[in-house]
Amino acid sequence: MKLRTKDILGLEYLSSEEISFILDTARSMKKISTHSTKKVPALRGKTIINLFYESSTRTRTSFELAGKRLGVDVINFNFSTSSTSKGETLKDTVVNLQAMDPDILVLRHSAPGTAKLIAETVAASVINAGDGAHEHPTQALLDLLTIKESRGTIKGQHVAIIGDIAHSRVARSDIWGLTKMGAKVRVAGPPTMIPPCIEKMGVKVFYSVDKAIQDVDVIMCLRIQLERQNKYLLPSLREYARFFGINRISLSRAKENVMIMHPGPINRGVEIASEVADSKSSFILGQVANGVAVRMALFYLLAGEGEENVTH
Amino acid sequence: MKLRTKDILGLEYLSSEEISFILDTARSMKKISTHSTKKVPALRGKTIINLFYESSTRTRTSFELAGKRLGVDVINFNFSTSSTSKGETLKDTVVNLQAMDPDILVLRHSAPGTAKLIAETVAASVINAGDGAHEHPTQALLDLLTIKESRGTIKGQHVAIIGDIAHSRVARSDIWGLTKMGAKVRVAGPPTMIPPCIEKMGVKVFYSVDKAIQDVDVIMCLRIQLERQNKYLLPSLREYARFFGINRISLSRAKENVMIMHPGPINRGVEIASEVADSKSSFILGQVANGVAVRMALFYLLAGEGEENVTH
Amino acid sequence: MKLRTKDILGLEYLSSEEISFILDTARSMKKISTHSTKKVPALRGKTIINLFYESSTRTRTSFELAGKRLGVDVINFNFSTSSTSKGETLKDTVVNLQAMDPDILVLRHSAPGTAKLIAETVAASVINAGDGAHEHPTQALLDLLTIKESRGTIKGQHVAIIGDIAHSRVARSDIWGLTKMGAKVRVAGPPTMIPPCIEKMGVKVFYSVDKAIQDVDVIMCLRIQLERQNKYLLPSLREYARFFGINRISLSRAKENVMIMHPGPINRGVEIASEVADSKSSFILGQVANGVAVRMALFYLLAGEGEENVTH
Repeated sequence: MKLRTKDILGLEYLSSEEISFILDTARSMKKISTHSTKKVPALRGKTIINLFYESSTRTRTSFELAGKRLGVDVINFNFSTSSTSKGETLKDTVVNLQAMDPDILVLRHSAPGTAKLIAETVAASVINAGDGAHEHPTQALLDLLTIKESRGTIKGQHVAIIGDIAHSRVARSDIWGLTKMGAKVRVAGPPTMIPPCIEKMGVKVFYSVDKAIQDVDVIMCLRIQLERQNKYLLPSLREYARFFGINRISLSRAKENVMIMHPGPINRGVEIASEVADSKSSFILGQVANGVAVRMALFYLLAGEGEENVTH
Repeated sequence: MKLRTKDILGLEYLSSEEISFILDTARSMKKISTHSTKKVPALRGKTIINLFYESSTRTRTSFELAGKRLGVDVINFNFSTSSTSKGETLKDTVVNLQAMDPDILVLRHSAPGTAKLIAETVAASVINAGDGAHEHPTQALLDLLTIKESRGTIKGQHVAIIGDIAHSRVARSDIWGLTKMGAKVRVAGPPTMIPPCIEKMGVKVFYSVDKAIQDVDVIMCLRIQLERQNKYLLPSLREYARFFGINRISLSRAKENVMIMHPGPINRGVEIASEVADSKSSFILGQVANGVAVRMALFYLLAGEGEENVTH
Repeated sequence: MKLRTKDILGLEYLSSEEISFILDTARSMKKISTHSTKKVPALRGKTIINLFYESSTRTRTSFELAGKRLGVDVINFNFSTSSTSKGETLKDTVVNLQAMDPDILVLRHSAPGTAKLIAETVAASVINAGDGAHEHPTQALLDLLTIKESRGTIKGQHVAIIGDIAHSRVARSDIWGLTKMGAKVRVAGPPTMIPPCIEKMGVKVFYSVDKAIQDVDVIMCLRIQLERQNKYLLPSLREYARFFGINRISLSRAKENVMIMHPGPINRGVEIASEVADSKSSFILGQVANGVAVRMALFYLLAGEGEENVTH
């Protein structure tokens, strides 16, 4: 099987077969990370450029590690010192990078649609590492992998996504992925954080967390963006924590084997209480580990020749 | 053949034979970039330190990619977090790096002559990646390679360099290189941007772009440094664009097969109109690709043992 | 022989046998750096994360080079763009990195004890690259290696450490290491910079440099931290230089073959005069070279399988 497009722009554009194929490849990749020599030079001689216009050490590091484990040369292109500060357009920056002949561009940008625009411009494969509030497909893929590994299947799982649904690219990508794979998705959050017409994406809306998490298999907390917190959306963090934070009491009302997930970095005591983040119900660190595997899988599927046996 | 010196400080210090030798080596290197595995570990185990005291993601990335394609370990030394902020002299920083035994130092610095000073201080080869308004030899070498590839020869080509000749290290290196290789060079720009006695470098001075570009084979635009634009040199960007910018009208007055070149990043609508930058006369992206090849060639010639067959 | 712990947190926690073992391994590693191909892929497939919460290009570069010479993949985690600015705790950042399965974390942090805290939290080996004013073990190990190489033995050497003993992690680590290896240590500095009860660490206190350096084999200058200089500790830099700086006159009063050492970066004319820093008594650049060797040794001992012959 092959992916139909050269790019990974969002879960909206992948079929359920493609998603399953990526998840299966990621599970093979995880085996590499358990070797003493955590490296298979399947992509030796390939070049990946990490082009991050929003700072994110965590995601960038995950992509970088994924590349290095496959023998790829990874170049980090630091937005803050880049030529954009010299008046160059994003498109010019990217076609210039393309002239250096990379195989994959990993792009994070604050403007929705940037990854698609760039993908249409360059010959290299583009992986969207987050474009504004639009999509963050590798996050959703690692979330799906985490659920599949733990539950055996995604189909039929009930998942509650809690938080700022309106401004979250993670929520959008997760909703696309989960519904395509047959999960039942609910969203909950303050009314200011629930986008109008979100039901059209195939989800049920709750305004009470207690009701939203009843009988679900997975609770996905979203991060409250402290650094760009909007006063008009939230009266206070304390109020958010009280009404929408997941704590021991919420956990006691949920299914006993509920999975707690969070894309990180977590704000302890805001969207998730420490007692929950550090409990055995938490799959947060497993998500991080799966992030490397999913990114390795995408690199392999997009840049690999298909002739090499990745698990030898 | 071998280069006569351990360093590449400027085109002023290279003979035409050395320049030809570097360009020929760069053409071999370009073949590597067309392989599916864009890597030949000819310099495996060698170390290159990128020491940039002026920010430049583009040039730094080009050097980094060039190194990685030859199997070199590349270390980026970030000026802004370096010990210079702790009161250490540049020379002390460099002799300390030398003590870690790198093979090549790639140095960019705002002070003319810095590369030479450092080259005399350390055992490693030094490649000048730009020293103030003095020289930027790898840029000129990639320009020469671009002309040679397209025209078969540099000798006898008529080249017009347009812009701030007085403050441009690119212009100085290009003039040295072009005249050594037998091209006929003209320069044009506002009177405040033409240095006195520039004719001594073997160029003809024009104050009108229209006249300067008549019958030339190559038009090289220089970048107007928006970020350090000096009010005393330019009444306004609009006026510069009108009198010295290269646009469709200029193109219609030039030879039909004229090459348009620019060291990048470009300021669309200032020194070059979008309709020209994106036209089939534009060789700007070819220059970027040649930049990687030229830097690979220099690394190979300076750090290679000469025993390995780079094209196998 | 093997090290007893998975981490290198300080010289306080290493036995003299372990220190000797590390120094012997470092001497083998130095031979690699003299090869034309300065690389032995003994640790191929291993991953090291440089996690620096205080800026230090020099030390970070030394660790990075050491890793690359052993074939390790080195990831630089830049504190200033990291998720800590998003409200994540240090511990959460580190357990997230651990989830990506690195072999070694190199950690620098301004808070004493951070390395120990993190070492207890993660499965990876932790190397303390400086924790506040507590310890900087790799600096002390490279100092010990420099003395041993020059003098044949550390035992019985008389060493004077001059400067801000109270706030120097270098001084603390050196004192632990030197006394464990049988050297006789003196410290000297302004009274405000001598910690109370320092004699309990087995050193003699002097308030006059002239007396402190009499008949010693080694003078170790400490760096005056210009960037965080405290007015209450020092009347002025000029006064410090006059009374505690090492200059030609101090040198004339010391043993003829005295070794002058400094952890760098040096403040010329403050704690050390240029005439001394650049004299044949100065071992400062040798210290830098030994820094790479010591860090290679630690990587090899902590992450190596022990089956490979590092010197082949």
